[in-house]
Amino acid sequence: MPRFFVSVPPTDTAVITGEDAVHIGRSLRMRPGERLTVCCDGTDHECEIEAITSDEVRCRVLSSAPTEGEPRLRLTLFQALPKSDKMELIVQKTVELGVSEIVPVVTERCVSRPDDKSAAKKTERWQKIALSAAKQCGRGIIPTVSLPVSFEKCLGLCKESERRLFCYEGGGESLTAQRLDEAGSAALLIGPEGGFSDEEAAAAKAAGLVPVTLGKRILRCETAPIAATAAVMLLAGEM
Amino acid sequence: MPRFFVSVPPTDTAVITGEDAVHIGRSLRMRPGERLTVCCDGTDHECEIEAITSDEVRCRVLSSAPTEGEPRLRLTLFQALPKSDKMELIVQKTVELGVSEIVPVVTERCVSRPDDKSAAKKTERWQKIALSAAKQCGRGIIPTVSLPVSFEKCLGLCKESERRLFCYEGGGESLTAQRLDEAGSAALLIGPEGGFSDEEAAAAKAAGLVPVTLGKRILRCETAPIAATAAVMLLAGEM
Repeated sequence: MPRFFVSVPPTDTAVITGEDAVHIGRSLRMRPGERLTVCCDGTDHECEIEAITSDEVRCRVLSSAPTEGEPRLRLTLFQALPKSDKMELIVQKTVELGVSEIVPVVTERCVSRPDDKSAAKKTERWQKIALSAAKQCGRGIIPTVSLPVSFEKCLGLCKESERRLFCYEGGGESLTAQRLDEAGSAALLIGPEGGFSDEEAAAAKAAGLVPVTLGKRILRCETAPIAATAAVMLLAGEM
Repeated sequence: MPRFFVSVPPTDTAVITGEDAVHIGRSLRMRPGERLTVCCDGTDHECEIEAITSDEVRCRVLSSAPTEGEPRLRLTLFQALPKSDKMELIVQKTVELGVSEIVPVVTERCVSRPDDKSAAKKTERWQKIALSAAKQCGRGIIPTVSLPVSFEKCLGLCKESERRLFCYEGGGESLTAQRLDEAGSAALLIGPEGGFSDEEAAAAKAAGLVPVTLGKRILRCETAPIAATAAVMLLAGEM
């Protein structure tokens, strides 16, 4: 069933506006009486369309239930900016696999260092990719992609999560040992093409992040977050 | 250290020929006395270059050891042909993550159904991607990409593996329950965009394949093999 996110929680009625309303009427050519899913903040509302105008789709809520596809674990991916357009693949795949939030990070060895204007534009694009992936895979929320932050800021933000991990090519603990099935939230920090500098690795450890390994093969910078997210979700009982 | 595969097992001497020899001399501009890794069938040979000609690089073997990056589990990915160029991403990522062999499969709902000539050309391209990924990530073998096979043929080939799994959107067991840490080999079958038909799912079960789930989110056809390979390798103790 088609799936749309709204920001105002539906009561007996759900109202879809903006681009989605146009999409429902013009592209999908849906009509009153047809059904769709309206999703708001982790709850799926099965709805029947009552009225469609050019800028609004009004629906009657038939039933509501927590979104099945929404993981229990709240995983925040702190991803050092990779080169070229690799971040697009990372956003799409990790949203499908269950991340709740993506925070791009500028580290010492990042080749990509966008200025404020370019960063805002890129973030807008990544947020659109996140929305599209969330709709497609059946998420209960639209994972947020934030503006890039500094490495120092990232270490501070990691403290909000119960488990704090960083994938370190210099070796680390197994992901299996991190008791992710007992955690409500986790932060996962992943480096750029050239990895973390020694100083960054030391600072991450000092900030309470546990170095973890993704195995003995050298994963490309865009493969690491996808594989790590799959592994974390498996260990959290979400796969 | 640069890494090259050879098909003839080195003794005291290793000889690199063909494109790799040209690459070493012209692109990398390596010289006698410099070191590189020659890999053959799961063994890494640390070598020192003795002589470089236009079509051959002759090296002295300094030491030999099993390739660290080569997983113990032999995983064969049976991948139903996806649309457009998604197979390229699948080959690259699953080789990095540790598959030993990739067998493209033509199933009922495959949109891509190349004729023999086109299939041969595509397979050649996928094999090149596999080689490049194997070099980059430090594998001990070059995973083979075979010519596409029929679904029936695929079910027969699966029987060669100790564990036989197929990712089924109709639901299945958890990957965690498959005792992959005790297995020497596993076959993993993944469907195309539209999934398996009911008949195919029934035939797979009848052939001894266990349906497994990748969680409650609907993964794109190219995300499923990447996530499943990561999960299998984690459970096999390889990540």
